[in-house]
Amino acid sequence: MAAYRAQPAFCRGVHTLAVSADLFKLNRNRLCESLKDKVPKGALVLLQGGESETRHSSDHEPIFRQESYFHWTFGVEEPDFFGAIDVDTQKCVLFPPKLPESYAVWMGKLLGLEDFKVRYGVDEAQWACDIAEVLKTKAPSVILTLRGMDTDSSKYTREAAFDGISEFKVDNTALHPQIMECRVFKTDEELEVLRYSNRLSSEAHKEVYTMLYIYIITMLIFRHYCYFNGGMRHQAYTCICGTGDNGSVLHYGHAGAPNSKQVSNGDMCLFDMGSEYCCYSSDITCSFPANGKFSEKQRNIYEAVLKSSRAVMDAVKPGVSWVDMHLLADRTHLEELKRKGLVKGDVDEMMKVRLGAVFMPHGLGHFMGIDTHDVGGYPEGTERIDQPGLRSLRTVRTLDHRMVITVEPGIYFIDILIDAALNNPEQAKFLVREEIDQYRGFGGVRIEDDITVTEDGMECLTCVPRTVEEIEAIMEEGRNRPQVPLPQE
Amino acid sequence: MAAYRAQPAFCRGVHTLAVSADLFKLNRNRLCESLKDKVPKGALVLLQGGESETRHSSDHEPIFRQESYFHWTFGVEEPDFFGAIDVDTQKCVLFPPKLPESYAVWMGKLLGLEDFKVRYGVDEAQWACDIAEVLKTKAPSVILTLRGMDTDSSKYTREAAFDGISEFKVDNTALHPQIMECRVFKTDEELEVLRYSNRLSSEAHKEVYTMLYIYIITMLIFRHYCYFNGGMRHQAYTCICGTGDNGSVLHYGHAGAPNSKQVSNGDMCLFDMGSEYCCYSSDITCSFPANGKFSEKQRNIYEAVLKSSRAVMDAVKPGVSWVDMHLLADRTHLEELKRKGLVKGDVDEMMKVRLGAVFMPHGLGHFMGIDTHDVGGYPEGTERIDQPGLRSLRTVRTLDHRMVITVEPGIYFIDILIDAALNNPEQAKFLVREEIDQYRGFGGVRIEDDITVTEDGMECLTCVPRTVEEIEAIMEEGRNRPQVPLPQE
Ligand SMILES: [Mn+2]
Ligand SMILES: [Mn+2]
Repeated sequence: MAAYRAQPAFCRGVHTLAVSADLFKLNRNRLCESLKDKVPKGALVLLQGGESETRHSSDHEPIFRQESYFHWTFGVEEPDFFGAIDVDTQKCVLFPPKLPESYAVWMGKLLGLEDFKVRYGVDEAQWACDIAEVLKTKAPSVILTLRGMDTDSSKYTREAAFDGISEFKVDNTALHPQIMECRVFKTDEELEVLRYSNRLSSEAHKEVYTMLYIYIITMLIFRHYCYFNGGMRHQAYTCICGTGDNGSVLHYGHAGAPNSKQVSNGDMCLFDMGSEYCCYSSDITCSFPANGKFSEKQRNIYEAVLKSSRAVMDAVKPGVSWVDMHLLADRTHLEELKRKGLVKGDVDEMMKVRLGAVFMPHGLGHFMGIDTHDVGGYPEGTERIDQPGLRSLRTVRTLDHRMVITVEPGIYFIDILIDAALNNPEQAKFLVREEIDQYRGFGGVRIEDDITVTEDGMECLTCVPRTVEEIEAIMEEGRNRPQVPLPQE
Repeated sequence: MAAYRAQPAFCRGVHTLAVSADLFKLNRNRLCESLKDKVPKGALVLLQGGESETRHSSDHEPIFRQESYFHWTFGVEEPDFFGAIDVDTQKCVLFPPKLPESYAVWMGKLLGLEDFKVRYGVDEAQWACDIAEVLKTKAPSVILTLRGMDTDSSKYTREAAFDGISEFKVDNTALHPQIMECRVFKTDEELEVLRYSNRLSSEAHKEVYTMLYIYIITMLIFRHYCYFNGGMRHQAYTCICGTGDNGSVLHYGHAGAPNSKQVSNGDMCLFDMGSEYCCYSSDITCSFPANGKFSEKQRNIYEAVLKSSRAVMDAVKPGVSWVDMHLLADRTHLEELKRKGLVKGDVDEMMKVRLGAVFMPHGLGHFMGIDTHDVGGYPEGTERIDQPGLRSLRTVRTLDHRMVITVEPGIYFIDILIDAALNNPEQAKFLVREEIDQYRGFGGVRIEDDITVTEDGMECLTCVPRTVEEIEAIMEEGRNRPQVPLPQE
């Protein structure tokens, strides 16, 4: 361990990215800058990290993953910490839990306060059990705790609490909007980690392309590749490995359907997989034919989605509305489906009845960072648009420099949505039923990349084969690899 | 999915074990048999399964793993279920959550009540939202809910609760001791799954032996092997991959030390890793020299531990006390350490001052089943023995047919324990300080197998190389494999 800790950094082996503790210090400083005009002199930010947990009534401990706000602020990898920042001086204190001496038998040599200070590159370290006393000596004018709702989960953050906090003046409203907004805009240091997560996850997707002939249980290859090659212990989210008609199941992979279907020749695959590094996510979807050659129908749908992905990426820059990008993707899909004969009539009229949402019921993309669905999509003053498709958008904001967002248009053939549209006279008149019926059971295509908005456009963090030709080429390469037997052989 | 569900069974691909729903039916019947003389006629068992969760305030959903009692009783793979059993008739009802129709877009075709009935092989299925009404029609004399403490975690099970339960008579004391005791004794069907978990995890350990020269990040190889070859999505517990002095850190692998140390030539490795299948665990530790050849010191300690492991396995049979087995391991360690010159004097006297606990501070083993540390170690009427080493025993019971328990003796060189013993005149007189000092920094050796007690002895479920010669041979085999480059090369 010591070898990786010569300088304070997150690292998972000499072959993985070293993330400096300065990344978090810069985050803290940015937060203080954003707060200083909005809170009284002498204010102190106080956050409580994630706690150690056991499963149900057993003593099984799941692998710990830090709470995202706490990670953003302090980069602490362990549970049961508090952290405080003096807004005026930008100096901070970490409060690690003090473990009984006897724990050394189970946990190894216990770190002292000086060790923690060095490990996480902070100004001061004090034991969590002493927090009330330590904070009393600092005599803050007010303690700022974190309370606010996540607009994706509708859950609230957990406010820091300790015995004796009632003796302090506490404000739980000022901090959340500021820290959330800080998280929306990524520093160069954060972008470097996001690029790393994306590069490794992209490489892992490419590995899946070349091994599909050999191996069938895709997510294993992916997960193993990211951890082995990139030191990525956590996946950013549960893999979605849909094949055939499961490709239209947007959250395939849930407990009732644990990615256990085997791939069949002729299936379209939709693999949505991303790992995280140092808690920074990637979120990538590749869609391709299981047998390595696009059929005409597969090519029709794939190229329609690729066209909308490219259209959005060409249009993205500061000042552009994300809602407009969603509508641009819808329009592109409808134009392409019209060219292929699946819909007919005037595309402007189709847009008015939200026909696009029949084929793409989800939002075009979401902020991404320490959370896969990152915070800040709906700051105060913004509201969801209550229309099909648009109501699923995880943000309606105007794009700006340093935002990171996914671009993930898709076309799916979902029976209940198609049937509802066929029964809705306003929409049914645009649908060519005989043609669409040919695509029932097809599943779906999604193309998902992660981008960051630059000063005058965007940078794509994801780097996987995207055109039909590129995909067929990489899969052909896989076909020529030596065959490895399947476990059952 | 349908392919695996032609008969109700847990399965993860054609190459993995199919577990029949009958396993759980038999568990229910055994439970009813054990309850019928202890509860009134017309009693109904009611359990609530694990709930779906999201991480902190985000919408990130960790992979669901069923609560262990619910799994034992119903084998349900999904969250948010209730299940009830009529003790007299042994018939049961499952209550799946009713999802809004629109979820089909995200989750795939929603299953109906008849589907769930077939999927889990139960007598009846009703929606969870209707539970109060359905139970009213059954008019139970009493509802038996599950409340009891887990003696490893000191946490309580969560009692089933639903709107309207106050209209029923509820008893929360009768069920826990009976169902816990049923879980202690494994059926043939359960043993088959435990053998499978153990076989696959054993194979994965062997893979690690042969690849250590090539790959350094052991747990990845292990985890990948189990999932890829065995369909094992969950690991039974966080891997402990200690090398060198970390081998004496009993819970190495925690968040502050995430198995990230690189192996050095000359290190002793201690790899404690097990995966679970259909929630049935394995828990296996292998200890071996990183460079494939035991040094004299490594052989001294390894063979002492192997000797105690063999002594315990030779002695295990119904009627034997687990406390006696722990003491037998201690005695064997002390005799061997005396032969090697690390301790001196009379072993009986050493036993009186619990000198064995200086080298093996943990308990000899624990029940294993659906939980790695399985329930039932301290039923009513039993108590912990407050002495070093013995107080860490997770059970003090007399062994009996169909119990499954780990045998995991170990010798570790832990500075704070050695220093404490050197400062304790009662213990210090037996220690040969100059010799023991040679082993500081050595780490430790643990040999852990999973066994089941048979009618007249035991069966070992684990099958990995154990003698020095076997280990050196398998590692030599690995050395001769083609070298694969490391990620950083
Ligand atoms: Mn996404
Ligand atoms: Mn164990």
